[in-house]
Amino acid sequence: MFLAKIKGNIVSTPKDKSLIGHKLLLAHEVDTNGEYIGNKDVIALDLISAGIGDIVLICQEGDAIQQMLGHAKAPVNTMVVAIVDNLDINE
Amino acid sequence: MFLAKIKGNIVSTPKDKSLIGHKLLLAHEVDTNGEYIGNKDVIALDLISAGIGDIVLICQEGDAIQQMLGHAKAPVNTMVVAIVDNLDINE
Amino acid sequence: MFLAKIKGNIVSTPKDKSLIGHKLLLAHEVDTNGEYIGNKDVIALDLISAGIGDIVLICQEGDAIQQMLGHAKAPVNTMVVAIVDNLDINE
Amino acid sequence: MFLAKIKGNIVSTPKDKSLIGHKLLLAHEVDTNGEYIGNKDVIALDLISAGIGDIVLICQEGDAIQQMLGHAKAPVNTMVVAIVDNLDINE
Amino acid sequence: MFLAKIKGNIVSTPKDKSLIGHKLLLAHEVDTNGEYIGNKDVIALDLISAGIGDIVLICQEGDAIQQMLGHAKAPVNTMVVAIVDNLDINE
Repeated sequence: MFLAKIKGNIVSTPKDKSLIGHKLLLAHEVDTNGEYIGNKDVIALDLISAGIGDIVLICQEGDAIQQMLGHAKAPVNTMVVAIVDNLDINE
Repeated sequence: MFLAKIKGNIVSTPKDKSLIGHKLLLAHEVDTNGEYIGNKDVIALDLISAGIGDIVLICQEGDAIQQMLGHAKAPVNTMVVAIVDNLDINE
Repeated sequence: MFLAKIKGNIVSTPKDKSLIGHKLLLAHEVDTNGEYIGNKDVIALDLISAGIGDIVLICQEGDAIQQMLGHAKAPVNTMVVAIVDNLDINE
Repeated sequence: MFLAKIKGNIVSTPKDKSLIGHKLLLAHEVDTNGEYIGNKDVIALDLISAGIGDIVLICQEGDAIQQMLGHAKAPVNTMVVAIVDNLDINE
Repeated sequence: MFLAKIKGNIVSTPKDKSLIGHKLLLAHEVDTNGEYIGNKDVIALDLISAGIGDIVLICQEGDAIQQMLGHAKAPVNTMVVAIVDNLDINE
């Protein structure tokens, strides 16, 4: 699981029924200061109504998401798990 | 899940029955401007008739794909999930 | 599985019930001298009461964690497995 | 799934019964011109009689392989899925 | 699956019962000449009595290991699969 910032929405033509009606967000990994790390975006399913600019916790794990969607055939493995309110760091 | 652009087709000799008859596409990760990222291609199963040049959403997750193929022994873990029509970005 | 050092706590708004009440720690991969490697933090579920500054063993594996939480729908795949007391290295 | 070229054979002492009698190949990721990418080899189970120098499709996915071996305890997650005859690229 | 060299032992305080009594080894990925690649160590469960200095085959796959331990809740996903006696390379 890692920290990411929501950058945008994906407008797509999902061909799999399990994805219809679900929001797909474009997110990018960030460090603890909210700065982007690397050059790769991820696309994550949003079941918790995260918004653009939010710092979130993202999990890449297929089984749990499939069970949350109630659909074992859902081809999804990335999900917004929580909105991060605060980081308490002590290095 | 990540964004990718379809670059070509794979003409192969699949030895596993579950793959016979399915299209395998060569794809490459892209950023939100459609520019290639990194130097690695991925090979993805296509069940949604994506075409060369399409920007797509790719998922790497074995279980769901195996269930979609109706074949628990299908050695596949990369799949074209959706064709991306538009990105709504607000950084 | 890899070595990491605990850097902080995450204060978040988990939307999934399976995560409520569980501590999420911010950790960073370290080498055998305890020096940070790379620029990516990971967020890990803590079921063993690790503290800030501890060198720990982290496992990224969804199924086992879901079963430990007794909740197949828990979207978690990173966990603090053990606190490392000593490394016996002989290169 | 990714493209790779077979470089050699592994002569090992497998301690797990499910691996005895199966060929383990040394492979290295390649681009669409057959040139090596990166510095990491992978070890892949070969059930399709690939040979040294072949360009193959490799899949990293544990569940399907375990079911193909008929052995849920087989600690294997990398497999040669197909021999690539041709790439039809149109960038 | 990849080649690695055993560097040391981990002396830890496992909090999960499934790990008590099992040896955890510190390993580092190597190329076919036995030279270290990258700067990341991995921690692997050893069920085959590998020793420091051995070149081994390491598999990262949770399900099989959990079944070998007879414990579906074992939070382990990295394992020493075989000791490599020889590499037969023909590039």
